[in-house]
Amino acid sequence: MEAAALARLSLPGVGVGGGGGGGGGGVAFPVSRGRLLAVKEKKKQQLHAPISASTSASASASASASASASASASAGNEEALRYDSKVETLLDSVKWDNKGLVVAIAQNVDTGAILMQGFANREALATTILSRKATFFSRSRSSLWTKGETSKNFINVLDIFLDCDRDSIIYLGKPDGPTCHTGAETCYYSSVHDQLEGPKPNQDWLAATTLQSLEATISRRKEEIEEAQNRKPSWTKKLLLDKELLCSKVREEAGELVQTLLEGEDRSRTASEMADLLYHSMVLLTAKDVKIEEVLEVLRRRFARSGIEEKNSRK
Amino acid sequence: MEAAALARLSLPGVGVGGGGGGGGGGVAFPVSRGRLLAVKEKKKQQLHAPISASTSASASASASASASASASASAGNEEALRYDSKVETLLDSVKWDNKGLVVAIAQNVDTGAILMQGFANREALATTILSRKATFFSRSRSSLWTKGETSKNFINVLDIFLDCDRDSIIYLGKPDGPTCHTGAETCYYSSVHDQLEGPKPNQDWLAATTLQSLEATISRRKEEIEEAQNRKPSWTKKLLLDKELLCSKVREEAGELVQTLLEGEDRSRTASEMADLLYHSMVLLTAKDVKIEEVLEVLRRRFARSGIEEKNSRK
Repeated sequence: MEAAALARLSLPGVGVGGGGGGGGGGVAFPVSRGRLLAVKEKKKQQLHAPISASTSASASASASASASASASASAGNEEALRYDSKVETLLDSVKWDNKGLVVAIAQNVDTGAILMQGFANREALATTILSRKATFFSRSRSSLWTKGETSKNFINVLDIFLDCDRDSIIYLGKPDGPTCHTGAETCYYSSVHDQLEGPKPNQDWLAATTLQSLEATISRRKEEIEEAQNRKPSWTKKLLLDKELLCSKVREEAGELVQTLLEGEDRSRTASEMADLLYHSMVLLTAKDVKIEEVLEVLRRRFARSGIEEKNSRK
Repeated sequence: MEAAALARLSLPGVGVGGGGGGGGGGVAFPVSRGRLLAVKEKKKQQLHAPISASTSASASASASASASASASASAGNEEALRYDSKVETLLDSVKWDNKGLVVAIAQNVDTGAILMQGFANREALATTILSRKATFFSRSRSSLWTKGETSKNFINVLDIFLDCDRDSIIYLGKPDGPTCHTGAETCYYSSVHDQLEGPKPNQDWLAATTLQSLEATISRRKEEIEEAQNRKPSWTKKLLLDKELLCSKVREEAGELVQTLLEGEDRSRTASEMADLLYHSMVLLTAKDVKIEEVLEVLRRRFARSGIEEKNSRK
């Protein structure tokens, strides 16, 4: 993400709707309460209307456009009108299927976890753009629904990505809490590997990326320490039990990483030493009950206002 | 990921098909060449067959089951038979839609990047389980296709996750190269934010998570250094231009992180210092042209064989 692009966040008319709050920092859309209300009003009107079965949803599109445009015009905001027109152009460029839908995937911007997958129609995407809350079209209930409208666990959308075919979208955002109705962080907790190879070793086996998997293992080592065991403790447990050892290892690994640069060592050594540093500092995070997601959120927030660079350039 | 579960990888009859290779390490399915060939044979037979339009694909399921089962039986492998039966049970548990499909999302296990999204029918999922290459059902061509069969950029699948409704799956894996036919790392490179707020500042604006975004920005700072500029360099540029400064900062930040544990500082301090350490060490990685993905791959590989713990417990 380019700092210049991120700096464009504070546009006039920005007013993020209530609820949530975990989503600040990073890329975001300007939100106009007027436009959002217009979309919500439209949503009420269309709730029981049949969905267009044609590939083009242009009829409902222009209706939605004019509703939205007139709301903005009454606010006398030319910029808002231009923005609405851009939203319409964007909605027109999406390749809706014969039911007027595209696949919509919600992803946690910090951890990369895929939280859930649903479908979006033109109205759902427009609502997500304007409200910044991940919104889908329920095929079973034939209605819009915003994730979190019942649970209050909204997904605060920072950016939306379209794929090369423009028929699949990602809502990249920050969830306020667990996304799955079961209380799990993500809806994807059934591992095919587990089902084929044996029973689940743990309930928290999610579709986790490498960093989250490593964190989960370190956390389990910490839990196991409390269940006193006779067998030789693992290296992770040793580190968790001995603060001095852990701290000296973090310092040592930082020194070894630095050496690879100063002494022009092979780049594979750099990757290996960075892996060591990352692992040992993640053990320290676990010792302090800090999640890597919190660290990434700190980075994202600083980064959004180019805080790291700004703070340090003043030194 | 639990080390015990990861250790189950080396099962009898494992023989990963040719091609690719970047996928090693981490969770994986046992692959039987016999079973895979049976599935491929079945695939040829069914290529021009109509897709079942009923919600249950049980007819083609049992056909596929018996083809697969007989191939295994000829190998006289009871374990393989049990495995096949488990695969069938699993395929039966998926909630295929009225076209016999589910949404299938391919995700990079290390970076968390969503690479592409397609659809899978029963045969595509079975093929992916057995071949460990992400395989989809093309709705336009009405045929199976394995990502990479033309480009050789396979997605080597390490595990598959089903969502709570069992109608959406993640192929969690490691790509051999760029996934998108445009040559982009992922198919999701069109940012709605960019389209609404202004032109793309860079071509490499992908649906990137926080860590990848930070890395991209640091890389751009490095490129900008080469394009000599008169304005005051950013902090990142200063670090990239001054090895000694960069190295002393990495050591300093490691020391500050360690202090938060030793002196029982607030956990928000720990998150903040870890963010500093991560940022500065990522600048070092960029200076050495090492991608964070390479570091994560090192961690995953060690982790899969519990290498970190094993190596260190011997010390």
